[in-house]
Amino acid sequence: LAAGTAAFAQTDPLPSWNDGATKTAIVEFVEAVTTAGGPDFVGAADRIAVFDNDGTLWAEKPAYVQLFFALDRVKALAPEHPEWTTQEPFASVLKGDMKGALAGGHKAIAEIIAATHSGMTTDDFAETVAAWFSTAKNPEKDRLFSQMTYQPMHELLDYLRANGFQTFIVSGGGIDFMRVFSDDLYGIPPAQVIGSTGQLKFELQDGVGPVLIKQPEIALVDDGPGKPVGIQMHIGQEPIFAFGNSDGDLQMLQYTCLPEGPSFCGIVHHTDAEREWAYDRNSDVGKLDKGLDAAAADGWTVVDMKSDWKTVFPAEGNN
Amino acid sequence: LAAGTAAFAQTDPLPSWNDGATKTAIVEFVEAVTTAGGPDFVGAADRIAVFDNDGTLWAEKPAYVQLFFALDRVKALAPEHPEWTTQEPFASVLKGDMKGALAGGHKAIAEIIAATHSGMTTDDFAETVAAWFSTAKNPEKDRLFSQMTYQPMHELLDYLRANGFQTFIVSGGGIDFMRVFSDDLYGIPPAQVIGSTGQLKFELQDGVGPVLIKQPEIALVDDGPGKPVGIQMHIGQEPIFAFGNSDGDLQMLQYTCLPEGPSFCGIVHHTDAEREWAYDRNSDVGKLDKGLDAAAADGWTVVDMKSDWKTVFPAEGNN
Ligand SMILES: [Ca+2]
Ligand SMILES: [Ca+2]
Repeated sequence: LAAGTAAFAQTDPLPSWNDGATKTAIVEFVEAVTTAGGPDFVGAADRIAVFDNDGTLWAEKPAYVQLFFALDRVKALAPEHPEWTTQEPFASVLKGDMKGALAGGHKAIAEIIAATHSGMTTDDFAETVAAWFSTAKNPEKDRLFSQMTYQPMHELLDYLRANGFQTFIVSGGGIDFMRVFSDDLYGIPPAQVIGSTGQLKFELQDGVGPVLIKQPEIALVDDGPGKPVGIQMHIGQEPIFAFGNSDGDLQMLQYTCLPEGPSFCGIVHHTDAEREWAYDRNSDVGKLDKGLDAAAADGWTVVDMKSDWKTVFPAEGNN
Repeated sequence: LAAGTAAFAQTDPLPSWNDGATKTAIVEFVEAVTTAGGPDFVGAADRIAVFDNDGTLWAEKPAYVQLFFALDRVKALAPEHPEWTTQEPFASVLKGDMKGALAGGHKAIAEIIAATHSGMTTDDFAETVAAWFSTAKNPEKDRLFSQMTYQPMHELLDYLRANGFQTFIVSGGGIDFMRVFSDDLYGIPPAQVIGSTGQLKFELQDGVGPVLIKQPEIALVDDGPGKPVGIQMHIGQEPIFAFGNSDGDLQMLQYTCLPEGPSFCGIVHHTDAEREWAYDRNSDVGKLDKGLDAAAADGWTVVDMKSDWKTVFPAEGNN
């Protein structure tokens, strides 16, 4: 028995998941769709798995990582924009008054994103993100953002890929932002990252060559009903496996799991105030309300972070 | 010698390409970027190859395949649109007067495309295309459109993939149209097809489930400067290998081959009036004018179809 347990422990593909209904549901689904000749077999070409990012693959509290980036960019760019000292939401950002800055809601955030995410080439933007990301930390946990991914989700991505799945990110975050770190962080190459997308303009610049200039206009808001749209535009196939954590994932989960045929839908429920954060129906970031009801009604798997995850974040130095 | 020739013939990855400068340029490039430790080595993750479709992977004369589909759909849908009997460009289409129908230029074509490519679910559209495509023939050659792909380009796609390249279609054609046959025809899965894209609307329909409704509004015109834009949006990496056939590919070729580093750009020059069609600088479909000049200036490889290709189309029954 001891030898058998050791052998199982060695080959457990999800060591950071505690045994229980959640882990069992994942493993049974993967085994069912990969069992050749079985009633739920799905060919490798159709094993499409999609993952939300913020709150699903990494932490999103106290605010989205990309918002911290945007706010730091406002400060860095302020010398070129003297008008920002009196113009909201920039004036509040520069005074360090985040509450004031975000009082303008979606419109204020959109202005901050446009001011910090357009007007440069895609290459220059990627370099700026990479430099920022190499040192930026979560202010509450004093830990690099790159170290605030979820260890159990890393194992799940690896497990799915080892079973012939293609793994995609489908996030409300910016596509050009996430692609800077998606491969290093998650083993997900740029072509498998779907996110909110700005228009681009091609220019052949003298002495520079061909470049793409990021425009302020939006091509795709990859959130809510925009997630199935992004999936169709980029992948062109319906996923059979989807994971999210908020009501912004509801339509992606419906699109994956309501049609006939084998499918798996999971929701990360943030229940761990000690190791991470605890929030759901009343949260401003990552609100999970309709999603919890839909999960109960449709039989989706809800991960109880506190009880299902043996560890939350990777050991320091890994991701 | 005979034995050596036979061995080479057996292993020649491009048997439908005649020996000469064009074939040599392709093979030497692929060998250079796949030679580990060599000065031009490119890791597999960066071996991105992009191909135009119409006129590059298959024939585009006397008109784009998708236009024949759209015209046939106008005829099929006419009973539901009595107003079309007097409304241009539909009236001319229904009278079989193609010249009259296309007299309205881009605007007329856009109206025909909108009327035949929107208002249905993506699934219904795909079924309609598949049914049409299974029997539709090129009117001049009396050959199935599915049999009008270029045998040498099939071999090139296979050769690149065998050498670790990822192959993408980057076409002005409709993304949802091409994805119906791209995998069967070219071994290119839906997620690696980039094309002109319409907006989509997610709906959760009673008794049906989640669907995406094709909208008449355009999200991306994947032609000319839109091709590098589509490449960035979908792939997020610069290609190192690109093939096109018209001025609509110019910016894609510039984007691939003007930056520093190993790269290959090819143009299919239609020079074979007997086996296919001969056209370039003055053609209405597939005009190749600036592209020929750029190829000469920048050292891109121009395929002379007549002399470089041993065969043009696959043997009947294959593709
Ligand atoms: Ca989320
Ligand atoms: Ca073309």
